Amino acid sequence: MSHEKYMQQAIIEAKKAAEIGEVPIGAVIVKDDEIIARAHNLRETSQQPTAHAELLAIESACEALGTFRLEECTLYVTLEPCVMCSGVIIMSRIPTVVYGASDKKGGTVDSLMHLLNEKRFNHQAEVVAGVLADECGQMLTDFFKELRANKKRKRLK
Amino acid sequence: MSHEKYMQQAIIEAKKAAEIGEVPIGAVIVKDDEIIARAHNLRETSQQPTAHAELLAIESACEALGTFRLEECTLYVTLEPCVMCSGVIIMSRIPTVVYGASDKKGGTVDSLMHLLNEKRFNHQAEVVAGVLADECGQMLTDFFKELRANKKRKRLK
Repeated sequence: MSHEKYMQQAIIEAKKAAEIGEVPIGAVIVKDDEIIARAHNLRETSQQPTAHAELLAIESACEALGTFRLEECTLYVTLEPCVMCSGVIIMSRIPTVVYGASDKKGGTVDSLMHLLNEKRFNHQAEVVAGVLADECGQMLTDFFKELRANKKRKRLK
Repeated sequence: MSHEKYMQQAIIEAKKAAEIGEVPIGAVIVKDDEIIARAHNLRETSQQPTAHAELLAIESACEALGTFRLEECTLYVTLEPCVMCSGVIIMSRIPTVVYGASDKKGGTVDSLMHLLNEKRFNHQAEVVAGVLADECGQMLTDFFKELRANKKRKRLK
């Protein structure tokens, strides 16, 4: 199934984040069955609050296409978008968003709010939730488990 | 009054946007009674959906301070923030946001939603609304009036 094929690519991006100590979240943007942008979370590395995978992928896609309107693109992201990333999805007019794991604490697509389905905004997006959700969520669980173990090891030294 | 002093600086930024044909919205970020970042809307010029005044000012402030946490900063912006910019305010932990004109169609601080006062997010910000609101709003009114007049002139040629 094509959603899973592209989510696998978003997972590859997420793993690049984990390798450099960033929370493993990855995203790709697809147009005409081709990946035109890919990015992973770089918040700690860049010390930029905007360096979420989705936002960076959207900026990269806009750069590639020369427009801020991504009207024929699909965004794949391993974790349910936050309020900022839901906002940039709306601003860039992406019609379809596919995500993996839910974010019960900060997700604003389905968990806390339904920002991509808010009729008062000038854009709404179709949402496909839960694609490879277990694999996407497991990466996060493993990452935080290792982080805690490392902190514990440091305290014991 | 100090809020008005800094809003005047945000207005100066907004006017820079108008001069290059961008919707006149400007922002400054203040820390310890000093402006550490200033920016204006550059969406059309950059063709980036993220190039709103607030988001660019926040990125610039994070670059200046070397951290994504703007915990001792105040954001001044001429127009009520949209959903994306409300999101980046939350992500950067800005404690105080001062804005000028309301945005009845897209503002998510007071008009459509109260995102900066949403208890389910891990950050809330204090909001001061309506500082130099008339001047901030008039810039937008004048800009769109001129835009319509220019379009009409072009059609008549």
